[in-house]
Amino acid sequence: MSKLEDVRSVDPAALAMLAVADREGYETVWDRLKQQQPQCRMGQTGVCCRICSMGPCRINPSGKKPDRGVCGADADTIVARNLIRMIAAGASSHSDHGRKPAILLREIAAGHNADYGIKDPEKLLAVAARLGIAVEGLSLLEVAGEVAEVSLECFGKQDGEPIRFLQRYMPARRQERFQRLETEIAASTGRRPGFLPRSIDREPVDVLHRTTFGTDHDPLSLLIQGVRCALADGWGGSMIATELQDVLFGTPRAKAAQANLGVIDADYVNILVHGHEPIFSEKLIDCSLGEEMQAVAREHGAKGVKVIGMCCTVNEVLMRKGVAVAGNHLHQELAVMTGAIEAVVVDVQCILPSMVNLTRCFHTRFITTSDQAMFPGAIHIQYDEQNARRVSEEVVRTAIAAFSDRNPAKVSIPQEVMEARVGYGVEELSRHLGGDLHPLAVALADGTIRGIVGIVGCNNPKITQDYLHVGLARELIREGVLVVGTGCSAIAVAKAGLMGLEVADQAAAGLRDFCRRHNLPPVLHMGSCVDCSRLLVLFSDLAERLDLDVSELPVVGSAPEWTTEKALTIGTYFAASGVPVHLGHMPPIAGSSTVTRILTEDLRGLLGGYFFVEGELLPATAAILAVLDERRARFLSKEEDLPADLAS
Amino acid sequence: MSKLEDVRSVDPAALAMLAVADREGYETVWDRLKQQQPQCRMGQTGVCCRICSMGPCRINPSGKKPDRGVCGADADTIVARNLIRMIAAGASSHSDHGRKPAILLREIAAGHNADYGIKDPEKLLAVAARLGIAVEGLSLLEVAGEVAEVSLECFGKQDGEPIRFLQRYMPARRQERFQRLETEIAASTGRRPGFLPRSIDREPVDVLHRTTFGTDHDPLSLLIQGVRCALADGWGGSMIATELQDVLFGTPRAKAAQANLGVIDADYVNILVHGHEPIFSEKLIDCSLGEEMQAVAREHGAKGVKVIGMCCTVNEVLMRKGVAVAGNHLHQELAVMTGAIEAVVVDVQCILPSMVNLTRCFHTRFITTSDQAMFPGAIHIQYDEQNARRVSEEVVRTAIAAFSDRNPAKVSIPQEVMEARVGYGVEELSRHLGGDLHPLAVALADGTIRGIVGIVGCNNPKITQDYLHVGLARELIREGVLVVGTGCSAIAVAKAGLMGLEVADQAAAGLRDFCRRHNLPPVLHMGSCVDCSRLLVLFSDLAERLDLDVSELPVVGSAPEWTTEKALTIGTYFAASGVPVHLGHMPPIAGSSTVTRILTEDLRGLLGGYFFVEGELLPATAAILAVLDERRARFLSKEEDLPADLAS
Repeated sequence: MSKLEDVRSVDPAALAMLAVADREGYETVWDRLKQQQPQCRMGQTGVCCRICSMGPCRINPSGKKPDRGVCGADADTIVARNLIRMIAAGASSHSDHGRKPAILLREIAAGHNADYGIKDPEKLLAVAARLGIAVEGLSLLEVAGEVAEVSLECFGKQDGEPIRFLQRYMPARRQERFQRLETEIAASTGRRPGFLPRSIDREPVDVLHRTTFGTDHDPLSLLIQGVRCALADGWGGSMIATELQDVLFGTPRAKAAQANLGVIDADYVNILVHGHEPIFSEKLIDCSLGEEMQAVAREHGAKGVKVIGMCCTVNEVLMRKGVAVAGNHLHQELAVMTGAIEAVVVDVQCILPSMVNLTRCFHTRFITTSDQAMFPGAIHIQYDEQNARRVSEEVVRTAIAAFSDRNPAKVSIPQEVMEARVGYGVEELSRHLGGDLHPLAVALADGTIRGIVGIVGCNNPKITQDYLHVGLARELIREGVLVVGTGCSAIAVAKAGLMGLEVADQAAAGLRDFCRRHNLPPVLHMGSCVDCSRLLVLFSDLAERLDLDVSELPVVGSAPEWTTEKALTIGTYFAASGVPVHLGHMPPIAGSSTVTRILTEDLRGLLGGYFFVEGELLPATAAILAVLDERRARFLSKEEDLPADLAS
Repeated sequence: MSKLEDVRSVDPAALAMLAVADREGYETVWDRLKQQQPQCRMGQTGVCCRICSMGPCRINPSGKKPDRGVCGADADTIVARNLIRMIAAGASSHSDHGRKPAILLREIAAGHNADYGIKDPEKLLAVAARLGIAVEGLSLLEVAGEVAEVSLECFGKQDGEPIRFLQRYMPARRQERFQRLETEIAASTGRRPGFLPRSIDREPVDVLHRTTFGTDHDPLSLLIQGVRCALADGWGGSMIATELQDVLFGTPRAKAAQANLGVIDADYVNILVHGHEPIFSEKLIDCSLGEEMQAVAREHGAKGVKVIGMCCTVNEVLMRKGVAVAGNHLHQELAVMTGAIEAVVVDVQCILPSMVNLTRCFHTRFITTSDQAMFPGAIHIQYDEQNARRVSEEVVRTAIAAFSDRNPAKVSIPQEVMEARVGYGVEELSRHLGGDLHPLAVALADGTIRGIVGIVGCNNPKITQDYLHVGLARELIREGVLVVGTGCSAIAVAKAGLMGLEVADQAAAGLRDFCRRHNLPPVLHMGSCVDCSRLLVLFSDLAERLDLDVSELPVVGSAPEWTTEKALTIGTYFAASGVPVHLGHMPPIAGSSTVTRILTEDLRGLLGGYFFVEGELLPATAAILAVLDERRARFLSKEEDLPADLAS
């Protein structure tokens, strides 16, 4: 994957802890990756089918027999089915996340939950306006109720119209493109393809149905449903998650924060929050930092309680509360090995099950809080929105009680900590730009900024940790590209010290001056993985200001170290929304030249966005720049069509 | 699997056609099964994980390394995740099917569709009553509108209450059992497990979410969600499919029908309908059998048009219209090889993609009609409820046009045809019993009938076709067990001639006399695979009459030759509803002793139903009888508790 493939991480904190792991014999994700070698080529190329019990079947990659499964499915069908099931799982994960703030907002609006409230009424009104909800004469809670109902309707409605969030958030131009495409395909083939999601929950169900034994066998038909399902995530579940979490917990504002394992303070009770959802962690943090729990911690000999975090749960509370970031995906085991974590408190997604056994080598309590994510051997303290305060206190007290069990001989905390500026949602970015995105649109149009690249997604032990995230960010800002990060990628870049205002010095002149003028770092932390929806809003706003379709904008999405099904879903909704998507390694599609061609070539003509794969840093940088420059050249050639105030 | 494993089928018609295939070199599903040997043991035992791109991973069955995936997931987690994803896919398939009649009913009620109507107002009122809809003062269309809304609400509602169909169809006693179990588990473990489905579309989404990378790792927690998802099928999607199809197309009545390839008549244009959904095939049959199309066929030199069918599409139209059955799953390729099929017209599910290439060896047109099931190389004629008549006519004309391309030298139709009595939904069974199921309850209570076994599910080329379906039916009626069949199993039994009234002569005395008295065959055809919901209604009704829980009733479900994910879902909702479930071969769970133990042992204590696996005919028969007898013994021991009119 990378030239550095024998090096497990580019992060010195990780390397320090891996030395501890090697010395003490703590098993890590890298060890298990080795144990799994060689990994199955059939699975890696997508040609293994386990959908019915006539199988399992596999296709011979050489073209010899077996070239069909027992049912007769060929590699194209098998690869496409497997891929869209992954997309459906990713969409379901994000969307199930988005459902929770929607339900909570409904509860608050109905007066059924006093533990939570509406922290950002301005955002609530903005969302209501966007959704076309008439708010005149309504109380704030009534508006909240309306917004919650519209959101929940997007999950469950049973008609054929596109969901309201997509209708109201996706630029009209792009919606028309989908409708035109549907009409064209119907006219030329007699098919009735559907690109736009009918409901958030229905599209994964449709994927599962059409991929079951003996149903849809046409790779294009399957992939179109994959697109529809992914759009239900990006413009549905994830968009709702982001927007309503802003309403409930506040729209992010720029702030200083710290990143990497050095944020762990040996003098404190350290609670590591990990997972993806802020509903519980918001309350847990309030409880932890309250005077009562701090006093209890002091009684137990600590200086107090500190909450730090991992993965997207921390991205949420980092953006809103400035909570310190211990690390990204591949840091989770390493954080436990510092010996100074009293409790790992998890909600859902991206939590290594190895953590349960690992925490047993220490005093660390591993606490699960969601009925959707149980871990055998964990302490389960069920979180409940109705008992937020009580559950939070129980968790914090459990962590404090562990402090006295800590073995100082086992404490080994790397010193690495980087300062970062974080909290740049689209609203905050707009504030920095003087109220709206106009200056950024101008900078794109006049070439001050060469393009915008959203670097997103996971770590993967197959790739030197953070190498591509950090390397791409560094190379791209040098080339004048504004970088926007979410998820584990944003954390990688923060840990590498590339999110400070002073980093503008490393950027190409145009970008550097732009960042200085607007007091922005050249790599913007835009939140968690569900916040990739913020990139959709950003790109859409810019495209509309430039009177372009997103597919004409010099923007790229990149998931260079992707691991999860969610990452594939994000990539798909980016591509379907007109954004070319770079991946650092192949999805399991290489076994079908048809599927590979559709995703890397045909999709471009159909939807403007598409996938390209490049695992080496400099070729990946070059490929991304080539896409940006080609798009810039195309839109500059139609400059006379730009809105008058933007044409240079 | 079976002692006959080198024999591909017990059906002489199949053997005749396989001789043709062997001679002419037509590739069949059996050939491809051979080409796939040896099949992957990892996949077969469930320990292959392809959920994230750190993998694919596999667990060493010997207990040596690797005993964990890269993330740390062990065999228990991997097996449970894979299994419930299969259950989710099966549930999604059935439920997506159920959505269509619900939407059609809403359209009819709103006056937006005049091509369809309400064929069975009595059933509509019965469903409305069951759902607790107040119908006083409502027109029939208004009642239909209410029923459609309640149905669609079950698909999409966003609260935590069980879906209304489950609340109103599942016996209260069983619902209380689930609620008690939830309370007990919550009290003893702090978990918050949920057994009862909140919405039909939400539960598969929840499955996909909790099985994605780093989320739920506890096999019990995963399997409970699998149960919830399966219940959303049985008491939701499938129940709605069955009930509303009865409303739209008529509740089945007993009738004579014919089964096996001999129903193909060389003098006619033969249209083979295949798949699962009746909405289109109902119209296609009306159109085909109309005088206009018959005349066109005669102009083309045929005696007319004949519609025959395959798999569950034909089970639907067989039950309601007496359409002749050409065969079950493994017959589909064989039917084409008769050389006398002008068109194979498919909707969704269980359609071998090999059919496209095979039909090209003949004049046979392969026509797809659903946008959810496209086949590269097929003729696609998109079906649309709004244009039922036009589309039907286009399909029939396409078939007729093919007639002149038929090559008489290639026509080879086996003579096998069996007469069968079919059409025994619960309503028709009740009619035969004098108005309700009381006599059957009495016969169960007094031992006249030893038990009831629902034999359901697919063919699988790993098992001699029909061997277990037919063998079990024959053995069980001999032992005094009433057999109820659906799906491919029912077709197998019909083809074997075991569905006539005279078959009672082969039954044990008590069953024989009961059947004669009530003019019933001892093997009842109860419909398609979604009609397994009829078995839930049957068992529930009998349990309530006997003042028992279903888990105390001497009943078993059996899917001896299962293939599809749907079959696993049916098995799971049977087990969760209190019915022990026999499978003829292992699901992919053998790699986890924990999952295997939960499904085959623990589930019994938790829910009353459970799984057992036995692939040999006589041991399977014995195992089923042992379950029935044990249950009979237990309920006879509490006979004093039986309702007075039932105690013998």
